[in-house]
Parts: sequence; structure tokens; C-alpha cells
Amino acid sequence: MSKHLHLNAFLMSVGHHEAAWRLPESDPHAHTDINYYVRLAQTAERGKLDSIFFADSPVLMGDPGRRPSGKLEPTVILTAVAVQTSRIGLIATASTSYNDPYNLARRFASVDWASNGRAGWNIVTTAGADAARNFGLDDTPDHRLRYEKAAEFVDVATKLWDSWDDDAVLADKELGIHTDASKVRKILHHGEHFRVDGPLNLPRSPQGYPLLVQAGSSEDGKEFAARYAEAVFTAQQTLDDAKSFYTDLKARTVAVGRDPESIKILPGIVPIIGDTEEQARALDEELARLISPEYARKQLAERFKLPIDDLDLDSELPEDLPTEDDIEGAKSRFTLIVNLARRERLTVRELIARLGGGRGHRTFAGTAVQVADAIEDWFCQGAADGFNIMPAVLPSGLERFVDEVVPILQARGLFRTEYTETTLRGHYGLARPANQFDDADALVAAR
Amino acid sequence: MSKHLHLNAFLMSVGHHEAAWRLPESDPHAHTDINYYVRLAQTAERGKLDSIFFADSPVLMGDPGRRPSGKLEPTVILTAVAVQTSRIGLIATASTSYNDPYNLARRFASVDWASNGRAGWNIVTTAGADAARNFGLDDTPDHRLRYEKAAEFVDVATKLWDSWDDDAVLADKELGIHTDASKVRKILHHGEHFRVDGPLNLPRSPQGYPLLVQAGSSEDGKEFAARYAEAVFTAQQTLDDAKSFYTDLKARTVAVGRDPESIKILPGIVPIIGDTEEQARALDEELARLISPEYARKQLAERFKLPIDDLDLDSELPEDLPTEDDIEGAKSRFTLIVNLARRERLTVRELIARLGGGRGHRTFAGTAVQVADAIEDWFCQGAADGFNIMPAVLPSGLERFVDEVVPILQARGLFRTEYTETTLRGHYGLARPANQFDDADALVAAR
Repeated sequence: MSKHLHLNAFLMSVGHHEAAWRLPESDPHAHTDINYYVRLAQTAERGKLDSIFFADSPVLMGDPGRRPSGKLEPTVILTAVAVQTSRIGLIATASTSYNDPYNLARRFASVDWASNGRAGWNIVTTAGADAARNFGLDDTPDHRLRYEKAAEFVDVATKLWDSWDDDAVLADKELGIHTDASKVRKILHHGEHFRVDGPLNLPRSPQGYPLLVQAGSSEDGKEFAARYAEAVFTAQQTLDDAKSFYTDLKARTVAVGRDPESIKILPGIVPIIGDTEEQARALDEELARLISPEYARKQLAERFKLPIDDLDLDSELPEDLPTEDDIEGAKSRFTLIVNLARRERLTVRELIARLGGGRGHRTFAGTAVQVADAIEDWFCQGAADGFNIMPAVLPSGLERFVDEVVPILQARGLFRTEYTETTLRGHYGLARPANQFDDADALVAAR
Repeated sequence: MSKHLHLNAFLMSVGHHEAAWRLPESDPHAHTDINYYVRLAQTAERGKLDSIFFADSPVLMGDPGRRPSGKLEPTVILTAVAVQTSRIGLIATASTSYNDPYNLARRFASVDWASNGRAGWNIVTTAGADAARNFGLDDTPDHRLRYEKAAEFVDVATKLWDSWDDDAVLADKELGIHTDASKVRKILHHGEHFRVDGPLNLPRSPQGYPLLVQAGSSEDGKEFAARYAEAVFTAQQTLDDAKSFYTDLKARTVAVGRDPESIKILPGIVPIIGDTEEQARALDEELARLISPEYARKQLAERFKLPIDDLDLDSELPEDLPTEDDIEGAKSRFTLIVNLARRERLTVRELIARLGGGRGHRTFAGTAVQVADAIEDWFCQGAADGFNIMPAVLPSGLERFVDEVVPILQARGLFRTEYTETTLRGHYGLARPANQFDDADALVAAR
């Protein structure tokens, strides 16, 4: 097998399962312990994974009673990891709706410098009135508008990252010229949403700029991904759905003139690994038992915009639900959850148990061999370039994946046995981006 | 001597002298090397210093030809240092004009968590049209308005930091309650410049919140410092000026109802240390020779709002200069430089040489004993609670200070021989701030 799959570890305090913190093994204070995250990253690096990833939103999500709430700012986590690892890629979410392009471009460029070329930015537009109300707004801007703004944000950011030529720093002590000022340029971006003169106050970073990642699977999200993303995280419950998504997104990428290999598609999987299938199922069931159904019912009612009393724990979802058009954020995730509940005729209680593990991502309980089989199957059938591994329980779920599943994938020739590259883009088999201002005409136009 | 002085190391790539990068010993690429900053911090920690500090501005300052330009974002530097040191305090500048309070409050709280209580925020309002033009504005807002906004920004930030009670996290696995939601509150700040609902998405950090630092010495700046600052960096050229500033700021602090001991005043000093006084002077002169006078003349002309031709290198400053009222940023620094030039009847060339070392801060060339004497003199005469040490050349200037000056100060009983505290506030002898919402009436009002 000549082509390797790619593996990202999506890390979330003590695990993706909302009840993971209640297990005896879990440290309920891990979410504010920087060294805990460093140890997780070192475990992922031991497994030769491509990257780790931290989601984020500038708002306190959900009920803090339910699970560890509040998170260290993820570029802070990435930096702490950067200086205590050497190869693993480092991806974090940041919002285009609630950041300034200048500050964010500089922060990710700084992480790229600090990690010697291992930074990645998961670009999100951030839904929800609660987040909007932390930034002077009454409500979240319209979905389409958020994506328009995101596109301009990325445009500004890449111009800033390209505002220094790679060879701008001369460091000529004899002549007393540190940097060739003619190779550092203003970008003079005066657009619909942003006005930024530049240049960035930082030389072009080792990767040129961070890997651009995207995770929204709505229509707007897929169009955005086709245009800008180099890696895509997605939630897919069935092989057929995953294949359709994969084929569709690669076609959209080709349609805008890009090489389909220049975008890597990674569906999420929540592996629950046991020595036997029975042991894995038992852990899954123990976690389900530890969910507080009242918290979960409330969260589900908010997602569906229903009064909480309309959701009966021991009945299926009501017939009359909103459509994706009525939903302002996580549109495709809404549809996926409704389809999952209808397809498998789940009661609300059963649906809550299924979502507890992955909030819509595919949960898979089994032995290490079965997990490896599941990964190989989707990869070989053209449903994925790799996977977004979302351990239900941390650190144990990541340790088991690294120690038990990765060696099987390596033995099958599906996954690297050593890092061959030093940068995040290198791990994903992607080229370092050229500087858009290398073209002299573009340069003149930008001045 | 019962009272110790405090020492902060103000770190700037290869040193504060603008020509430091041209010395044979200097690494002209140090400004983008995270490990370089970590080593500097470890040196400062070896010297038991209270803290290190990184200045910042969200703009490319000055001519990049002149000296290393562009800097890693300072909270990124602080985080890398945090996880590779254990005691040294970590202070960085961030602008209240060009950040959102929610994002900035969270980032500094994250650094406080990552460092186990060692974060400090130097609050600046950021002058200059070039910075404004990176954030959608045509020009810098008026000085007074910037300070009004800064005051509201700090008010919002402290409310966010206090939005979680210290004992909010219960981590009760048995009952399945992670956090007591009644101890996490919205702040519902709807002010003149900011509307932020909160709560912060992070539990209250080890110090409660970062040490609040301030460095502007204008009238607005001093009023702001008296009200909010716990440590103050200031540029003072003479003992008399330093004593006046010290007395004035302590009095202003008392006038707003604060304990004068709750604010620590640290004038800057640029020590140039030699084995003999002659050797120190020789290094100072070598550095002055390496300044490119044309770059420096241009920068000086910009500061004085004069055509460059009005500054003759071999004449004194022109009679007709603007007044502090005409200057939008670094107002008190402007006055200090004019007074220095007039008092010592310096030619423009001589003034440039004097500014090359400290940009207005006091430069002192001498032996380690002479530097220690200078520090002791100002400290004992009531001009300072400590000093902001600004090595002209790094890392050598910091190493010499730590290895040669610190032991003298320790032997004289003026400086700690071991850390006795673990937090930045602890080092400065300051108390951990109470939560403003501990008062039940305030709590109800805020809800």
C-alpha cells in the first residue's frame, strides 16, 4: 500500500464522552492543567500521529454542572506543547467572527515559529447568541454573512502572512542592515468587513502560514472548505454518507481549480477500546449510565429549539422538528442527529447515550483490531483520507489507541512508523504555500 | 535592612541598544527563536528576579532595516517560558485599544493557569496611526478617550476574572455535579465602550487575575496607574525627577483610597557592565559607533514631528519644538528627551547615542559595584521600590547583571537570596485580590 492514512487526535479535557470525568480514573481538574495537555500531546507524538487538535468557542458552553467547563485558550495550550514536543502537528480553533485578523494572524504565526512549522488553524465562524453577547452584539450574525466575513478574514490573514518575503531578513552586521525593507510590504486591504494596512510585525513563519483547517459541513461550510481548507474535520455516521461527503467535497475542490489531493478529509471516530468486544461495550454502557439525562435533555431541546417538555426520555423524537434552515449553527450536525434518531428509531434516552460519546460523531466500541478494521474499511473504500480520533476517555483512550491500534495500522502498511517530515503540512503530504506576492504584478497591485 | 527591592528584567530580542544586533556575539535571528527567550527567562530566574517583561505593539515599529523587527506575540513567549520555569513572574504588554476584553481576559487567565500564578499584564492604550490602521481606523483615538476606554476595559476584565467564585468547581463525581453553577455568573456589562455578558469560559485563575502593570507617565497615565496599577514601569533620568514621580504617584494612589504599598514603582535602568569603568565605557562607545545615524535621525524627527532636515546631527535640538500637548503617545517620554537634550546641551548626534541604549531610560555604564551602588542609592533615597533592568546587550548583559550585580545586592541585604513565594504577586509582596462578587450585594446587582 503506497498511500498512508492521516491521524489527528481531537483532545478535550478528560475525553469526548460527557460523563468521562465521573470515572474513577479521571482528573476532574485536568481542564485547567497545562501539563496534562502536554502529556497527552507527547502520547500522540509517541504514536507518530499527524497532529493534535483543540476545539474552542469564546463563550462558556452548556451547563457547567454537567461536565468540566471552561478551557485554557488553545493557542496557549499549543505553545506549551510546542516547546515540549518536536514533531506532532498543533491545530486549534479560532473564530473569524470574534477576532481581529491582525492579532490572530500574528498569534498563529508566532505559534508556527515557536513550533518550528507545526501550527494549524481550524477556521470557524462561531454560532450562537451567547458568544455574540460577549462581543457587543445582541445576536449571532446570519450564517451566510458569517461565512462571507470568514472568507475576507482568511484573505487578510494570508496577505499579512505573505507581507514579508521569505528572504527579507539579511542580518548584515557589516552594513548595518537587518532587514531588506523592500521585501516587507503593506497589504492595504480595504474590504467589506476589514481594513488592515499591515505589514505583519513578524517575519514569514517556517510553514509560510499555518495549515488551514475547516470543520463545517453545511453548504456554506463545504464551499468555504473547497476554496480554503487543507484539512477538513467532519462528522459522518455511515459509510455511505461519508463516501458521498468525500466525493462531493473533492469535486467542489476541483471545481474551484485546486488539486483534490490538496485537501485531506478526516471523519471523526470515537473509539471505545476493550480487550474484548464485551469489555468495550461494558465501558460504553458504564459511560452511558453516568450521563445525567436531565442535563442532556435540556441541551438536546436547545439544539432542536423545542420546549424541554416536548422531549420524553422514553419516546422517539417528536414528528414536528425544525429544518436545517431554521438552525443558525452546526446545521449539518443537526440534520445528522435527526437522521440518526429516525434511522435507528432511537428513544430520546438512547439518542442521548449515543451522543454522549461523540455529539454526533461515529462511536465505535470494540477491540483494537476491530477499530483498526473500521478505520481501514472507510479509508480503502474512499470515504476518508484519514481520521479525527476522538477518545471517549482521556488519557486512557488515547494511550490505548496509540499502543494498540496504531501498531496494527503500521503492520498493515497503512500508517507511518516514523515521522519523515518536520512540519504539519509535511505530515499531511502538502506543499509549503508560495508567497502570493512573489508574483511581481500582484506585488505592485498590493502596494 | 528589612525591606527588599524588586527587580524586573525587561527583555528585548538581542538587547535594548538599537545596535546590539551588530555585535559579533549577537544572534540576529534571536527575535523569532522561542528557545532564546526561554534561556533568557531561565537566566533571570537563576538571579531570583521578580519577573521578566516583554513590551509589545500590534504594528511593525520603525524601519526594519535598522534593527531586528517584528516580534513573537508576547503571550506566546510567556507560555513557552511558563512551562520551562517555576518561579519567575511573567509580564507582557497588551493593548486595550486593539483587543476584545473577553479574548484578552481569557488569554491572560490562561497564562496565569499555565504558570501557576505568575502572569502579569502591562496595560497600554497604544498610540500611533500605523497601529490604528491595522484595526480599521484612520488614526489613533484621542489620548484621553483611549484612557477612558482602557479604564472600562480593565473594569470588564476584572469582572470576567471574578465571574467564577474560587470554590465554584466541586468535582463531585458521585452526585455528577462538576461545577456549582450558582457560583458562576454573567457580568452583564453594558458600558460606554463595551458590552460583554460573560461569564468567562475559564475558572478563576491561581492569582485571581494577572498582576496589573502600567507604564505611561503622562497625566492620564498617572491617574490610571494610581487607580489600577500594582506595578509601574517609568523612565527617569535624574534622582530628583525620580523622587518627584515616586512621591507624586504614591500620593495619587493614597488619594483614591489605596495603600501606597499596593503599587510598586520601578524606574528603568540600562546597565552597561564592565570589569572596569573604562571597559564599560568602551562597550557603550562601541555600541554608539554602531548606530546608523540616518535611521536614528529619521526616528527622532518623527517623534518631534519635524522635517528630517530640521535636525542637524552636529547641532543642538532646534529652539522651536512641539509641546507635550501636541504629542499623541509617549507624551512624558517626549518631554524627558527634550529636557535631557537641553539640560546637557547635547547635539543631535550625542542625543542619539544616549537614546540608543534606553530610548529615554537612564543608561549607566560602570562596574558591577557601581551599578549596585546606583541601584541602592535611588532605592534608599525613596525614588524607587525596585528597578526595571533593561540590558543593552542580550544575553550577556543579563548574565552579567545576574552573576555580578545580584550577588552584591544580596550581600547588602537588599535583595532576596531565594524565592519565598510562588506567585508574581507574592514576589512583589502584594495580596491576592479578593473576588469583587464575594460581597453578596454586589453579586445580586451584577446578576
